[in-house]
Amino acid sequence: MTRPLVLHPDRLLPADADTRAVARRLLASIEHLPIVSPHGHTDPQWFADNAPFDDPAQLLITPDHYVLRMLYSLGVSLPQLGVRPQSDADGEQAGGTAVDSREIWRIFAEHYHVFRGTPSRLWLDWVFAEVFGLQVQLEAGTADHYFDVISARLGEPAFRPRALFDRFRIEVLATTESPLDDLRHHRALRTSGWPGRIITAFRPDPVVDPQYPGFRDNLTELSRVSGCDCRSYPEYLEALRQRRAYFASLGATSTDHGHPTAATAHLEFATARALFQRVTQAQVSAQDAELFRAHMLTVMAGMSLADGLVMQIHPGSWRNHNPQLFTRFGRDKGADIPMRTDYVAALKPLLDLYGNEAALTLIVFTLDESTYARELAPLAGHYPALKLGPAWWFHDSPEGMRRFRRQTTETAGFYNTVGFNDDTRAFCSIPARHDVARRIDCGYLASLVTEHQLGESEAADLAVELTYELAKRAYRL
Amino acid sequence: MTRPLVLHPDRLLPADADTRAVARRLLASIEHLPIVSPHGHTDPQWFADNAPFDDPAQLLITPDHYVLRMLYSLGVSLPQLGVRPQSDADGEQAGGTAVDSREIWRIFAEHYHVFRGTPSRLWLDWVFAEVFGLQVQLEAGTADHYFDVISARLGEPAFRPRALFDRFRIEVLATTESPLDDLRHHRALRTSGWPGRIITAFRPDPVVDPQYPGFRDNLTELSRVSGCDCRSYPEYLEALRQRRAYFASLGATSTDHGHPTAATAHLEFATARALFQRVTQAQVSAQDAELFRAHMLTVMAGMSLADGLVMQIHPGSWRNHNPQLFTRFGRDKGADIPMRTDYVAALKPLLDLYGNEAALTLIVFTLDESTYARELAPLAGHYPALKLGPAWWFHDSPEGMRRFRRQTTETAGFYNTVGFNDDTRAFCSIPARHDVARRIDCGYLASLVTEHQLGESEAADLAVELTYELAKRAYRL
Amino acid sequence: MTRPLVLHPDRLLPADADTRAVARRLLASIEHLPIVSPHGHTDPQWFADNAPFDDPAQLLITPDHYVLRMLYSLGVSLPQLGVRPQSDADGEQAGGTAVDSREIWRIFAEHYHVFRGTPSRLWLDWVFAEVFGLQVQLEAGTADHYFDVISARLGEPAFRPRALFDRFRIEVLATTESPLDDLRHHRALRTSGWPGRIITAFRPDPVVDPQYPGFRDNLTELSRVSGCDCRSYPEYLEALRQRRAYFASLGATSTDHGHPTAATAHLEFATARALFQRVTQAQVSAQDAELFRAHMLTVMAGMSLADGLVMQIHPGSWRNHNPQLFTRFGRDKGADIPMRTDYVAALKPLLDLYGNEAALTLIVFTLDESTYARELAPLAGHYPALKLGPAWWFHDSPEGMRRFRRQTTETAGFYNTVGFNDDTRAFCSIPARHDVARRIDCGYLASLVTEHQLGESEAADLAVELTYELAKRAYRL
Repeated sequence: MTRPLVLHPDRLLPADADTRAVARRLLASIEHLPIVSPHGHTDPQWFADNAPFDDPAQLLITPDHYVLRMLYSLGVSLPQLGVRPQSDADGEQAGGTAVDSREIWRIFAEHYHVFRGTPSRLWLDWVFAEVFGLQVQLEAGTADHYFDVISARLGEPAFRPRALFDRFRIEVLATTESPLDDLRHHRALRTSGWPGRIITAFRPDPVVDPQYPGFRDNLTELSRVSGCDCRSYPEYLEALRQRRAYFASLGATSTDHGHPTAATAHLEFATARALFQRVTQAQVSAQDAELFRAHMLTVMAGMSLADGLVMQIHPGSWRNHNPQLFTRFGRDKGADIPMRTDYVAALKPLLDLYGNEAALTLIVFTLDESTYARELAPLAGHYPALKLGPAWWFHDSPEGMRRFRRQTTETAGFYNTVGFNDDTRAFCSIPARHDVARRIDCGYLASLVTEHQLGESEAADLAVELTYELAKRAYRL
Repeated sequence: MTRPLVLHPDRLLPADADTRAVARRLLASIEHLPIVSPHGHTDPQWFADNAPFDDPAQLLITPDHYVLRMLYSLGVSLPQLGVRPQSDADGEQAGGTAVDSREIWRIFAEHYHVFRGTPSRLWLDWVFAEVFGLQVQLEAGTADHYFDVISARLGEPAFRPRALFDRFRIEVLATTESPLDDLRHHRALRTSGWPGRIITAFRPDPVVDPQYPGFRDNLTELSRVSGCDCRSYPEYLEALRQRRAYFASLGATSTDHGHPTAATAHLEFATARALFQRVTQAQVSAQDAELFRAHMLTVMAGMSLADGLVMQIHPGSWRNHNPQLFTRFGRDKGADIPMRTDYVAALKPLLDLYGNEAALTLIVFTLDESTYARELAPLAGHYPALKLGPAWWFHDSPEGMRRFRRQTTETAGFYNTVGFNDDTRAFCSIPARHDVARRIDCGYLASLVTEHQLGESEAADLAVELTYELAKRAYRL
Repeated sequence: MTRPLVLHPDRLLPADADTRAVARRLLASIEHLPIVSPHGHTDPQWFADNAPFDDPAQLLITPDHYVLRMLYSLGVSLPQLGVRPQSDADGEQAGGTAVDSREIWRIFAEHYHVFRGTPSRLWLDWVFAEVFGLQVQLEAGTADHYFDVISARLGEPAFRPRALFDRFRIEVLATTESPLDDLRHHRALRTSGWPGRIITAFRPDPVVDPQYPGFRDNLTELSRVSGCDCRSYPEYLEALRQRRAYFASLGATSTDHGHPTAATAHLEFATARALFQRVTQAQVSAQDAELFRAHMLTVMAGMSLADGLVMQIHPGSWRNHNPQLFTRFGRDKGADIPMRTDYVAALKPLLDLYGNEAALTLIVFTLDESTYARELAPLAGHYPALKLGPAWWFHDSPEGMRRFRRQTTETAGFYNTVGFNDDTRAFCSIPARHDVARRIDCGYLASLVTEHQLGESEAADLAVELTYELAKRAYRL
């Protein structure tokens, strides 16, 4: 016996009836605003080529690290979910057993109950109901029905990337590329005649982090694409400036920096040049690598002040914590773990130089919620250059967003925040994620109204700010 | 004028009327499930001998470190609560003043209001009302009434340990013993004909922690009970394997490790043997002690993978923080203080070896709630071997449990948790503690239903899982 | 079109109707209790001279670091808010542009919406409505109306400091002075015939912190005011004892210590004397400075045990984090940032000596909320000497207070807390801040009643304790 799949119109709104009534009115006033997605990881090729998406498993399961991590933790192997061992990139399945997409989907369906209480459940149910029109819940008994319906839909023109982009009412969507990327898909989009606004963002980790896989080769490639000789520190900086300008010419308004810590440093030129020489050798010490990353954050802030690109820092993830899994399957398989992160001392060298510059926008994120009230809200509530990024990754969830608002608003206010980021590779989930954020924000605002901290018209103004205006202003869109 | 003592049927359920109604239905469906108590510190002799419990003060006050700590913090001396100085073990009272049980009880009653808002109040009121049938609140004016009623009851057959065990509907109760324990009471229980299921758990701290009082004597005793010569590292390991097997033969399904930190290490055999030689000398450095504990956690995980005992780690308590109190009165008098605890780096050596083993169950606890969302939920939501223990000790409380659910569920889900532990020496409070946990869990589930994140039938399934099934599966009961 | 300014009678009370009804009754029973303000930073000269306050901007904007920090973070310069560069102390405005008070007020009014969701908004609206009788909300269009009304009121006798003190029903108000202060205003108040109780508190940071600006000159001045030769460590201690006694003679019942960390130390006399010699030289190492501060906290605890002054520790603020701002504008301009703070190891040397002394009262505060449940509640719930100060500074806010209660009560209880501190320089906001605290506390107590953890009469008792009695007892008023 199947159970109906219904997205309740009051989902995620506060339980209290009076507060819920306010939240409903606020939501009604903003739920049809277009989506501004200033930071994420979708593939620009989807929109450039506008080819149909793959089958259901390849679209919704295999690339979703939230799904992989949970199922893996409960005993499902990655090959059962379509993830191939790296040594097996020619197409054979691990152990010689082919796992086809329908089989992957069935395993997923059998385990779907383990997502109860998680945001993955919210996002996926939204996609099932709103994108694919499914009307029963996913479970073992409905696995084949789901697979058949989604497969069929993916063949229809209305489910191609550009059609979904339009249907999702996305006003602007930023992807994230390496400085080594030639941005061919972004160029193609510019000349395609299709009016969808898809822009890039500059993520220089591969050429500023000496511990990034292939760092030295990446510098060689940076020399090639920029025409600068990146064995020289000044030319390396010039190459970065050039690539930033090239990204900006294809719509980029921001950079993004995914460092293990938030450390920044300010080195004299000669010291920096000598450090650059050391970190471009074959053997690099952990201290030198950290110092170079720290120095480059400050350098990048200086470049942002000059060229106007908004700077984002996403620190605090211990990438690839599970070496067995990393060796066998590679990056981004759900084995990244947050770490305790300091901001007050770490950001000081950068802030000492640029913190008072209102012309610079530095958006800081965290995976360490203990820093919301203690460090980040006080910093953002003082430094003109600093803004708070929204609840990120593990905290991009109803309770995570509530903690973000409750722990930052009283010190940083709303106007030092920058709206929502979906930050996802999972294109179909973008409107689902914005839907969750809008509901939680309206619930939070409604609670301020019910407690008579805000008038309802003020809350309505703020709902528009949090949904739309703050992101556009902060990211200069 | 006395005030009635009433346990309200809606106690601890959410205030919102709709949510409360759902919570009530969920609670009704699970409140009569038997108690599974997989981790605790009751005395097996109680059940082996089935002698009457001592008087009210000796049963409910003197051994309860939650009660002692609070009263001590507010100026009551430990001897006033029946705790004797260690030098005074022959029975004299401190300062020569005998404090009899009725007097202890009166002091307790006069101060009972200081427990307002604490879980001790909830547990004690439950015990007073449900176990002893008291109908007025405890205060100075009812102290003697309480003392008389409880004293009388304790003399009745229905209040002997086995009768209470049955009345509490305990399906299985684990105690915790040292490897040096001969488990005589557990053996006696096995041959007693009484069907109550009481099992042991293996807590090797006295023989794996070089800073444990009497460590070297403990190794001598371990040699004696095992027949291995524990001056040799290989024989020491063999002795531990033997004792684990002996514990398992008397029902143990788990081990427990109470280290100051969560540090683990993986040492080569020769290095470990040399370290063992150092830590078994009279003088041990703090670094060697920490490294040996860290190494032994990894060794124990390997043994658990081999023999199937579920492994529990309870780190992060600074034991005996108050040296004056410790010198005078000894351990477990309410002077243990939590510390900031790292898991991400600390557990990595162990996880690198065994984290991907679905056949291993490693249950991790914390006293540092900042790690719930940042470290523990991400780790448990990825590694197949890792599960999250419930809110522990200072956090075994309504708000503590709510924080646990709100901060772990979205990342780890429900199915990487293991149900409730009462973890208590206070036998009569066991059902009270499970009652609190069931109510808080039903309230949490109800809030997910009211916010339309879960259907009510899903919540009902989960209520059974959280109350009963998860603990049985995780602890292999 | 203006919007009415209304302080809703239910503001800040829980949204749930049943809980709100309980909270309302609790609030009605305590809202008219007098204000006990045992810790703050108002200027005793106001009350000694009883001169009219300055204009609206000088009273309400320029000295309020909460207001400055938020407006500065959003691009308003400090001179626009009436803060003069230090080099400009002769009265010229920065850049030669004079900013008059009306202009400051207009800038403030234009930006007033940025305080939505912050406690500044709550406090300011209360002051506007209750103190000045304003009936429309502050915004650009009402800026001049506000300026005119407040300016006019400040000229009236009813708005002089003593009149407001009486109108605010303040029973006792503590200010905070340096040991070098001659307390002339406090002396004047004693002989003024005005019955308002205004007392001092002893804040020795300028003479116990070797990194305090002017430390060596301060010791010279301490020698002068005490008649002791403070180049000698024993005489330095004697000088401190003398000044404490002098402060106590003018009503002081407490000391206050604003250290960067909570570190304490216990040094032998000879070691301490040698350290004192080092830290009184021109060059002081950071380690010596920290050790001396740590040692002096323990020394001060000993003096408190002797003379009965209650000791307060306010650690964990990185003062003057923004060097550009500090150099240009000086201290207390909203650039202090909280830091992660340890208590368990840090306080141990002091607690080892004095923690078991019920005659000592040591009130500890924090800016690091992760320590509430993990460190401070367990410490306060054990050590007789230790009490928990209320939610402080960035956490003196509705959500901050809720976190304080929810994270400390279950372990420390209510009776190890000390009531509310307004801790403010902003005199008019004192009743506003107490109003917020009373409402949040009544709401918290009401939630315990609605969840049947407390009877309503118990909650009513506790409301009086939290509002009035605990502060009077803890601060020995």
